[in-house]
Amino acid sequence: MRVSQLFTRTKKNAPTDEQAKNAQLLIRAGFVHKDAAGVYVWLPLGLKVLNNIIAIIREEMNMVGAQEVVMSSLQRQELWETTDRWDDEKVDVWFKTMYKNGAAAGLAWSHEEQMTDMMKQFITSYRDLPAYVYQFQNKLRNETRAKSGIMRTREFVMKDMYSFVRTEAEHKLFYDKTTAAYLRIFDRLGIGEHTFFTFASGGAFAEFSHEFQTICDAGEDTIYLHREKKLAINEEVLRDDVLAGLGISRDELEQHKAAEVGNIFSFGTSKSEPMGLSYIDEDGQKQHVVMGSYGIGPARVMGVISELMSDERGLVWHENIAPFSVYLVSIGQDAAAEQLYNELTANGVSVLFDDRDERPGAKFADADLLGIPHRVVVSEKTLQANQLEYKARTSSDSELITHDELKNRLVKSA
Amino acid sequence: MRVSQLFTRTKKNAPTDEQAKNAQLLIRAGFVHKDAAGVYVWLPLGLKVLNNIIAIIREEMNMVGAQEVVMSSLQRQELWETTDRWDDEKVDVWFKTMYKNGAAAGLAWSHEEQMTDMMKQFITSYRDLPAYVYQFQNKLRNETRAKSGIMRTREFVMKDMYSFVRTEAEHKLFYDKTTAAYLRIFDRLGIGEHTFFTFASGGAFAEFSHEFQTICDAGEDTIYLHREKKLAINEEVLRDDVLAGLGISRDELEQHKAAEVGNIFSFGTSKSEPMGLSYIDEDGQKQHVVMGSYGIGPARVMGVISELMSDERGLVWHENIAPFSVYLVSIGQDAAAEQLYNELTANGVSVLFDDRDERPGAKFADADLLGIPHRVVVSEKTLQANQLEYKARTSSDSELITHDELKNRLVKSA
Repeated sequence: MRVSQLFTRTKKNAPTDEQAKNAQLLIRAGFVHKDAAGVYVWLPLGLKVLNNIIAIIREEMNMVGAQEVVMSSLQRQELWETTDRWDDEKVDVWFKTMYKNGAAAGLAWSHEEQMTDMMKQFITSYRDLPAYVYQFQNKLRNETRAKSGIMRTREFVMKDMYSFVRTEAEHKLFYDKTTAAYLRIFDRLGIGEHTFFTFASGGAFAEFSHEFQTICDAGEDTIYLHREKKLAINEEVLRDDVLAGLGISRDELEQHKAAEVGNIFSFGTSKSEPMGLSYIDEDGQKQHVVMGSYGIGPARVMGVISELMSDERGLVWHENIAPFSVYLVSIGQDAAAEQLYNELTANGVSVLFDDRDERPGAKFADADLLGIPHRVVVSEKTLQANQLEYKARTSSDSELITHDELKNRLVKSA
Repeated sequence: MRVSQLFTRTKKNAPTDEQAKNAQLLIRAGFVHKDAAGVYVWLPLGLKVLNNIIAIIREEMNMVGAQEVVMSSLQRQELWETTDRWDDEKVDVWFKTMYKNGAAAGLAWSHEEQMTDMMKQFITSYRDLPAYVYQFQNKLRNETRAKSGIMRTREFVMKDMYSFVRTEAEHKLFYDKTTAAYLRIFDRLGIGEHTFFTFASGGAFAEFSHEFQTICDAGEDTIYLHREKKLAINEEVLRDDVLAGLGISRDELEQHKAAEVGNIFSFGTSKSEPMGLSYIDEDGQKQHVVMGSYGIGPARVMGVISELMSDERGLVWHENIAPFSVYLVSIGQDAAAEQLYNELTANGVSVLFDDRDERPGAKFADADLLGIPHRVVVSEKTLQANQLEYKARTSSDSELITHDELKNRLVKSA
């Protein structure tokens, strides 16, 4: 793609009411547009990153055997009453609306109830189990405050997966398998080394739930990290009995601010019992289905990555999720740059070609602000040397390399 | 994919409250789940078809030079007041909700206002034009009745594109280019020969708008078709002056029931003036941006296709949008079928492998109900003849063909 054709542009300043670093950077780079407090629009470059994140999560969910669906925003009151989560006193993030006939509808902040109810159509026998179902769906949450940029918004895309199995033992197996998939996801997104499997309160149904927490100054949580064991404990379960159970002593723990990027829950039969999701087992007996839920917010994760993987010059995307692999700059050598653009593109390398009539400094600043992994410059100087100027976004130094060497680096990484 | 692993299953009957043929078939085939009147869940097979439709539309939108974004459901009251479309008396499909602080929010039934407002951030000079922006976004519409299955729901995905140009002449060029793209889309979706460019009322801003109408008994509209000229006129503009302008006489027209599958509008400056979207032209003068809007509802189109391309045995998907290309049936020859499944899959052919312990008749009935284009049977009889049984979904006769012939047919079409 050519920068001259992109309808967005970079900005010197973010809106004055935007406090969060992630949103400041993303707005300045033209990745998102702020419509209202906690409400953002995905612009072309931002949507590419978000979709790259979603594609990685989708691959891993398919690998654990889950099947994709899309549920609705509109939610039925009676469904949420069966689990006593309709009342605004019980759940304080509902947005509600009304049908023409005066009936109320909720706008989904979660889909546990609708999913459990739907599965009654498909699960009646032990032969129908296990079933693993996920979606990427828009969630609406009526947050009192929205001040963490795209890390906590009033409307956001969420990957939620639900597991339906026969026994606690089967549940444990899938829970562990999904834990491994989540760790692979965060590795592939480039935040693996900062992200830790974290013990959290399990509610009434299990001893623990688990969070995936990324160490990050902008995070809203505090975790206690055992670096050697690669696990963490959140504040609410930092108790002596928990530590003893994990074989950890308090003085081995590091305290960090962290942001939750994923969570997994064991429901047991706490949803299936009130909602009547049961199956007939091998002996003809009726049993309640054992359930779990597994969430990742791709937009929130992108916010955390923006906080963590950025510097004073702008965003720094990992190759796996960058909107483009290469930022190509022409300094007065449009024909030669054009030729390289066509060649790289034909080789499957995604290139953002800065073909604008702008001074080099402005182009370099934009390349850095946008966080594209590889910057390549074509200028009179490089052409005379029969070379190209290359700079990685993570490096402050550029180097002259040959055309072949450039192709080696880029076509491999594409 | 293996049928035994799919969590959905086919049903003998659709819910008794479902009147529309499209939804009856899609529910029986396990493509969608009905949650409430006008509210459906996309199940794995249905989501594949929907995503195939979306991918075709996206390709064509990218080809006309448009860039993809995703806007929000939550809409600001003051924006819609600038065009006098907030009031429920003016727009009768609003769902509205309320923030914690008591401020109202609308839930988007359209995005014209939000898009126009956002583009003020990016358009200031003639150098910023043209700009073409589109999205696939969830729309919510508070319909009084919902009885056309997935053709008219209260919540649905919509592709809406908006064009921003300098002059009416530029607008006309892009409008015609998009018309051609729309006709290509309907061709690729397999409904090209039934779909016609249709003159409709243009509102206050243009002589005409245009619809794309597909001839279909379940349609809510009536069109008057000039088959030779490949254009139609809808009821509201069937006037002598319009016919004269198009050089058509009334007795050349065929009357048909039809379903609207797309629409395109010229706004002129009717949105940009009240909302203040202007640019500075080459002479330093301020001008209002000339706009157009271009819609296709992928889910609605899928509903129309389900109505039109189905028979007494079930759905009939066009190769381009089918959830799988091949339905592979094993009759007591699981090992041989497994081998063929692996071979076809490795060659990029998408196969739904019916590996269930079911009688052949039930498998054949499901293959037809699901509408998979190619059915292949492996049985003792076919193995003895060193052949395979092949049937196209559109044919009632099966034939024995060689393994090589099968690969020729399928790998070509994959």
